Amino acid sequence: MPDHISKQFDMELENIRTRVLQMGGLVEQQIRAAMEALQDGDIDRLDRVITDDAKVNAFEVEIDEDCQHIIARRQPAASDLRMVITVIKTITDLERIGDEAQKIARVGRSLYQSSRYPTPRFREADKMAKSALAMLHRALDAFARLDPTAAVELAEEDVMLDEDYASELRSQITYMMEDPRTITLSIDTLFICKAIERIGDHAKNISEYVVYLVKGKDIRHTTLEDKKRETLPQEPA
Amino acid sequence: MPDHISKQFDMELENIRTRVLQMGGLVEQQIRAAMEALQDGDIDRLDRVITDDAKVNAFEVEIDEDCQHIIARRQPAASDLRMVITVIKTITDLERIGDEAQKIARVGRSLYQSSRYPTPRFREADKMAKSALAMLHRALDAFARLDPTAAVELAEEDVMLDEDYASELRSQITYMMEDPRTITLSIDTLFICKAIERIGDHAKNISEYVVYLVKGKDIRHTTLEDKKRETLPQEPA
Repeated sequence: MPDHISKQFDMELENIRTRVLQMGGLVEQQIRAAMEALQDGDIDRLDRVITDDAKVNAFEVEIDEDCQHIIARRQPAASDLRMVITVIKTITDLERIGDEAQKIARVGRSLYQSSRYPTPRFREADKMAKSALAMLHRALDAFARLDPTAAVELAEEDVMLDEDYASELRSQITYMMEDPRTITLSIDTLFICKAIERIGDHAKNISEYVVYLVKGKDIRHTTLEDKKRETLPQEPA
Repeated sequence: MPDHISKQFDMELENIRTRVLQMGGLVEQQIRAAMEALQDGDIDRLDRVITDDAKVNAFEVEIDEDCQHIIARRQPAASDLRMVITVIKTITDLERIGDEAQKIARVGRSLYQSSRYPTPRFREADKMAKSALAMLHRALDAFARLDPTAAVELAEEDVMLDEDYASELRSQITYMMEDPRTITLSIDTLFICKAIERIGDHAKNISEYVVYLVKGKDIRHTTLEDKKRETLPQEPA
């Protein structure tokens, strides 16, 4: 293959990688905006998060098309093919994280529009969102640096986020039993926490695709011990 | 390309299509088993649904690998490439439907193990599960027959399933307010209905990939009117 064609192919691959990271940045911004607007009771900003989800979707459709053109025209092999497949899977998870941010904004909007409550604090949801955002950031960073070690960290953090959700569920059930007037607010709070918990799942997925990309191994559906063995440097036996 | 190589390629493509349908059959069976065992309070069967999710996951990993081998060795173009990409996306949704069936079984198991209730009826959840199963069956059928018209039907049915969920949510909130002792059972019921509602989303996704496969158009994130225009026969202007 002539050198300039190969260089152009490199540029095309680099271009989709960059756009995945831009899409990831937009999705992080959507989560942050949804949580801040939720805390502030800022309905206009919640509306903006809802409509801006179309931008996330457009990213997915465009990058998806580019990947398919690259497969069709370049017929990539080995690690180039794994990169393209990784991108196709990663943008699906990013798009669904975008959907979760939109859900948070929708719950927030309906909650403030009913105006039955003073601005609630959502303290636990806020703490969970910070963890989920850190997980997403770590996953995108792992994608950018081709770092397979993030998968183990994120699997561990995902367990903690699941526990945070379970604990918040127990608290909200207690509140509801103590004061049934808070039931609607508690249910809304649980929806928000559930959306955040799912963001953690998607971040974990992305970090697992990076392992596949770098190591050529599919570590989804494996135990934490297996993930450690596949991704971390091993001590000599 | 010699005829026999092309024939072998056809067989490989046919083989992954068949395995997607087998995986789909297994996933349908998981949903049905989870709902029946939930109605019967059959903890052993709920346990089996939970452990059998590993079979669904194994299908995903295997078919995924086969798709990547096909892309790498056969360098498919045009509709063959679209078929492979469609399969990669479809099995992701099937795997997540499997997760939802597993979630239903987990909620059921913890509910019966706590044994605080007589066997509840889950009447609305059962009705929703029947709709979601019909949607999944239609989506798999559309994949088998390369029928793009299912996408419009499933988009409409998905709206109805979302409405069923919203209506069940309102009912459960009313029950909880009337009798706070039912809060835990109501929350469990809502988790089950939410899992079913998501099965409908995934079935809709699968039917949209079929449109992409047959028409080469990406109709995700479009309105129902757009979906109709892209998939249904048009009257002459």
